Amino acid sequence: MKIGFIGLGHMGNPMCRNLLKHGHKLKVYDVVADLARKLEKEGCELASSAAECARGVEVVITMLPSSPHVRSVYLSEYGVLKGAKSGTPLIDSSTIDPLTARDVAMEAKARGCPMVDAPVSGGVGGAEAGTLTFMVGGDAADYEAAKPILQGMGKNIVHCGGIGNGQVAKICNNMMLAIEMIATSEGMTLASKLGMDPKVFAAIVNTSSGRCWSSDTYNPFPGVLENVPASRGYSGGFGADLMLKDLTLVTDAAKNAKQPVVLGALAQQIYQKHSNDGHGAKDFSSVILQYMKEKA
Amino acid sequence: MKIGFIGLGHMGNPMCRNLLKHGHKLKVYDVVADLARKLEKEGCELASSAAECARGVEVVITMLPSSPHVRSVYLSEYGVLKGAKSGTPLIDSSTIDPLTARDVAMEAKARGCPMVDAPVSGGVGGAEAGTLTFMVGGDAADYEAAKPILQGMGKNIVHCGGIGNGQVAKICNNMMLAIEMIATSEGMTLASKLGMDPKVFAAIVNTSSGRCWSSDTYNPFPGVLENVPASRGYSGGFGADLMLKDLTLVTDAAKNAKQPVVLGALAQQIYQKHSNDGHGAKDFSSVILQYMKEKA
Amino acid sequence: MKIGFIGLGHMGNPMCRNLLKHGHKLKVYDVVADLARKLEKEGCELASSAAECARGVEVVITMLPSSPHVRSVYLSEYGVLKGAKSGTPLIDSSTIDPLTARDVAMEAKARGCPMVDAPVSGGVGGAEAGTLTFMVGGDAADYEAAKPILQGMGKNIVHCGGIGNGQVAKICNNMMLAIEMIATSEGMTLASKLGMDPKVFAAIVNTSSGRCWSSDTYNPFPGVLENVPASRGYSGGFGADLMLKDLTLVTDAAKNAKQPVVLGALAQQIYQKHSNDGHGAKDFSSVILQYMKEKA
Amino acid sequence: MKIGFIGLGHMGNPMCRNLLKHGHKLKVYDVVADLARKLEKEGCELASSAAECARGVEVVITMLPSSPHVRSVYLSEYGVLKGAKSGTPLIDSSTIDPLTARDVAMEAKARGCPMVDAPVSGGVGGAEAGTLTFMVGGDAADYEAAKPILQGMGKNIVHCGGIGNGQVAKICNNMMLAIEMIATSEGMTLASKLGMDPKVFAAIVNTSSGRCWSSDTYNPFPGVLENVPASRGYSGGFGADLMLKDLTLVTDAAKNAKQPVVLGALAQQIYQKHSNDGHGAKDFSSVILQYMKEKA
Repeated sequence: MKIGFIGLGHMGNPMCRNLLKHGHKLKVYDVVADLARKLEKEGCELASSAAECARGVEVVITMLPSSPHVRSVYLSEYGVLKGAKSGTPLIDSSTIDPLTARDVAMEAKARGCPMVDAPVSGGVGGAEAGTLTFMVGGDAADYEAAKPILQGMGKNIVHCGGIGNGQVAKICNNMMLAIEMIATSEGMTLASKLGMDPKVFAAIVNTSSGRCWSSDTYNPFPGVLENVPASRGYSGGFGADLMLKDLTLVTDAAKNAKQPVVLGALAQQIYQKHSNDGHGAKDFSSVILQYMKEKA
Repeated sequence: MKIGFIGLGHMGNPMCRNLLKHGHKLKVYDVVADLARKLEKEGCELASSAAECARGVEVVITMLPSSPHVRSVYLSEYGVLKGAKSGTPLIDSSTIDPLTARDVAMEAKARGCPMVDAPVSGGVGGAEAGTLTFMVGGDAADYEAAKPILQGMGKNIVHCGGIGNGQVAKICNNMMLAIEMIATSEGMTLASKLGMDPKVFAAIVNTSSGRCWSSDTYNPFPGVLENVPASRGYSGGFGADLMLKDLTLVTDAAKNAKQPVVLGALAQQIYQKHSNDGHGAKDFSSVILQYMKEKA
Repeated sequence: MKIGFIGLGHMGNPMCRNLLKHGHKLKVYDVVADLARKLEKEGCELASSAAECARGVEVVITMLPSSPHVRSVYLSEYGVLKGAKSGTPLIDSSTIDPLTARDVAMEAKARGCPMVDAPVSGGVGGAEAGTLTFMVGGDAADYEAAKPILQGMGKNIVHCGGIGNGQVAKICNNMMLAIEMIATSEGMTLASKLGMDPKVFAAIVNTSSGRCWSSDTYNPFPGVLENVPASRGYSGGFGADLMLKDLTLVTDAAKNAKQPVVLGALAQQIYQKHSNDGHGAKDFSSVILQYMKEKA
Repeated sequence: MKIGFIGLGHMGNPMCRNLLKHGHKLKVYDVVADLARKLEKEGCELASSAAECARGVEVVITMLPSSPHVRSVYLSEYGVLKGAKSGTPLIDSSTIDPLTARDVAMEAKARGCPMVDAPVSGGVGGAEAGTLTFMVGGDAADYEAAKPILQGMGKNIVHCGGIGNGQVAKICNNMMLAIEMIATSEGMTLASKLGMDPKVFAAIVNTSSGRCWSSDTYNPFPGVLENVPASRGYSGGFGADLMLKDLTLVTDAAKNAKQPVVLGALAQQIYQKHSNDGHGAKDFSSVILQYMKEKA
């Protein structure tokens, strides 16, 4: 299948490579032309604009950093909707706010192009290994059409309901994750300060009602688990600044929906301070450093 | 074995009955004399004070509502330490602050009585079914001595380290639990408000990084899981006021230890408001009502 | 002077009437045509679009509900910049985010029109009495040019620095105000619960380090001050939903600036809940009801 | 008048000196004997216990660091109530929790001694200059009896109502103060980050609804006011750790009263973190450093 792919870099490039491996043909575009050149050597065709990238392909995939980028890449004068033939399926894998996802999809539909939002989790590691999870929002038929293509880049392809719900699932999950990571940080550091061995405490919590993914799979306390960022100085993993971005998206969405998210708003503040303290590039479990007297 | 049991009621009475079933002999005491009388009919000996209850038994178990009660029952003029023979093992199953647990155990040790703190989780249901979890703090030998007795009332007997650590494990676990329950409430209500089916959202979270016990086993959103308090009007379960009590204990312990617990302190405030709004007797998952416009 | 005024209603209409009283001639426009008709009877000329309203006048004033409205009224195909002659001073009295204020002013400048942002405080009462405070952002010369016109509608005309700083001053002041109102609510209700007479407590605070405008001029506890909303069931005054709008603006601005505002974010959450509880139309000092057991 | 004074140090010693200046005779005691010796050289009589210090004097004044100290100094075997003659007025100037103040006063009353609680504000500077403010809780007659003595050490002597209300007034005022100081820190740093001159912003706030003692008299932003701690590296003033102590007292009192204090609880957390970051000895306005990227 011939695919137009827009938005390259740490995530986009390995996603493209996996599509090539699955036998697809690629036409690629990025505003930063250098990012595309590497892929040209690996057999991709280069496009000179988003519109051109969407012209003559059977499906378009986008992977962009924020809502304004998505709006511009799809809707501007040289955007996807100017190039894509009516009926071309569009897949946006950016993490953006659900309202923008729904707006852009509505414009796409008006020009005859079915669109799904399909944000990912799994990070750069998952992109390289082809094991990403895609949370897909869109009509059932559009989801079914996108599924085989997404399977070329990921392992779990989950249907979340109508358009925009891929974004809702992702940002609401990540809000819970951020709060739970801070909860685990507070519980672990307090138990330790009160005299318990952190490993013993983690073992008890993990068979009890306090357990969560942050405590049993990604524990932030150094030395409790092997092969997690906490055991290698918080390198690798999912960056604190990326978590901050998702917390900003989710608290914005909550404001628009007039829905309180008290702990979510406070988690956003804690990650903002953590980032300002110079830890934004570390894994997001490094937020535990906010609770330790000797900071890294 | 002949056991002195002090502190009756919803938890104490079924614990006593299970000890009887396991073939122990019981001498019981409570400041509210009526609570003991029921047990007399079932074959327990009555004592007229804590000291007398501790006299001539092989082990003493206490189940009391708060730190001052524990201090008084053990240390007052008519307290356990006045009656217990040197060498008698003492087991306190109350949930109290770790400092009090350590203070009282030190006094007990000074009079020759080894003591463990052994707070429980599992609630009235677990007490009746004999399936409580005991989190035990104390020396290894004292833990081993207490274990067979505790097995008469519970299923999981966990050693948490030195004296006081049973309390630490319990209150730190419950702080994490409270925060995660609120996190789940915020995530579920926001996803729903943004247009997702709550069951679909829960299913995604529960196979993703946001999963926790509150989302996958005890989901607070009505209709997502069967056989949880959320599906029966938040009746039964673990009362919001009991969670408030534990949050008060843990934030006090954090203050004494000079350890920040930002989300823990906020969770305490949210449960205080929830209680003042008239929901204290409901299950603690009812905190989600704070996030729903039409309150129960 | 001939003035174009865009954005009518509770604030805009009395502002127009005061300009008429000061001898100005008015041309008015609102998307809701009915709002303008009342003013027609009072001697204003009607315009059929923002562009037309700006055509042939000596200055343009706008009073709009949000950032997207300002962007559209100034920059759209039928917007102010299409109609205003080069050199026409533009005054935007809307409360919006500082970035939008700066963006729009830059576009205006590019077409030769000097622009200031001049959000107000003082509410409907101040608009009617002509006693509004204007916080003005813009170059010194533009501020001086706008000042005599603003004096037709207000009493205090304050220069806050460059363009956008009127907005900054307003939303940062209101964030402090919201936090201090909640602080006063917490202090007053706690002192009362702990046994103090609220009037005695207020008198002490107001001569001590805890004093603030919310405690000494606008106390939220019923009966402490006369002639404040708290003494008439929280009617009149500055609506809780308007405070919520400003808190949303200021926390958005803080996010964009990557600046933590921990109490500000929590205040936004508290006002969101207060609004969802049905109190949005009451004066913003009614937030104290969140701290009283018997809610109004 | 012959006065027994218990609890010496930075506050107690200058208070004693002012009493001497006013012509009183002093008998002094502190558990740290060295603290009393300095005063002996200045003409005070030394006592060897609290009981002895209270024996044969016409009034007893205490100035102690915490609730357990007050309980012990008054109620222990060698305490004030063992030495004071029935009818001797007792004045406790410690800042402690209101419940302890009321408990101890009840015991004192039972032995015939009228007692008032009279915590101070004004710090070491006010103690030295004799300009302290005393917030007095107690019956009107007892307040009147204490007043002339307190005037030997302070300038404002305020009656707050019944026993314990001195403490209530002090800790509730200081909770408001802490929140307002953080509010001012957030407002000042955000306005500055958004491009306003901090002095201009402060000037606007201070004539507007956001004004408070922290903004107009004790502004935490360096360079805005002269002669405040912010303009000398946060030295001098009221230490952040003392504010933390008061916040701990007030949030404990709120818990006992089952009264939510959401921003108060968060302020306590922010000051705890500030202290752990190494700023506890600085003036409490240094909390603004939590909001500045380059920390002191």
